[in-house]
Amino acid sequence: MQAKNEDRRLPGDPEQYYAAHVFVCCNRRPDGHKRGSCAAAGSEALRDYMKARAKELGLPRVRVNMAGCLDRCEFGPAMVIYPEGIWYKIATKADVDEILETHLRHGGRVERLLLTARDIPPGKG
Amino acid sequence: MQAKNEDRRLPGDPEQYYAAHVFVCCNRRPDGHKRGSCAAAGSEALRDYMKARAKELGLPRVRVNMAGCLDRCEFGPAMVIYPEGIWYKIATKADVDEILETHLRHGGRVERLLLTARDIPPGKG
Repeated sequence: MQAKNEDRRLPGDPEQYYAAHVFVCCNRRPDGHKRGSCAAAGSEALRDYMKARAKELGLPRVRVNMAGCLDRCEFGPAMVIYPEGIWYKIATKADVDEILETHLRHGGRVERLLLTARDIPPGKG
Repeated sequence: MQAKNEDRRLPGDPEQYYAAHVFVCCNRRPDGHKRGSCAAAGSEALRDYMKARAKELGLPRVRVNMAGCLDRCEFGPAMVIYPEGIWYKIATKADVDEILETHLRHGGRVERLLLTARDIPPGKG
């Protein structure tokens, strides 16, 4: 079984440095690679947009980072928000706007964009 | 105040996809930049080593990723392990080995390498 958050914190741990730490996969594979890649699907521009909009909105203690391959390529462009560990597939700026507003501002979930436990790359389940 | 993990999970959230998701800052600034950078301090080789060793050790559901600037440059090379949100400064392969063994294998903390809530870049507190 996968660990839940509460399994891994210990008494005395420092509080979370960021309230929400977002990682957008910006890995790029060569054109034609069978797994594709998030950057080839446009993730870099979406990450830049998300970072800029988070700043404009003044969301406190939110950090938007690029990351290397998160290994859910087939379901990307993929991003994850920690500590809650919620994954989304983002395809458009409108998707990013909805995550910023619903998840990062209000603590909700954008159900239509969620990756689920079933979204596992072939051969890795 | 900073959010704790348990503040941000909702009933019905999928379980964590990775048991431990490690992000090593691999941002590189030009030589002589006043903030320095983690890559200039050797983080890329440490990330490569950590990824390879985690695989060799067969640690289940552990992912080691590179990341862009985590914005704790002055205290780096910086890395963070989610969902628990524990930050470390890594300088040597021995540091990485200790984190792999103590934290990632056994769920403990490497106290001597921890970043604390006080490790905030100048002007950002």
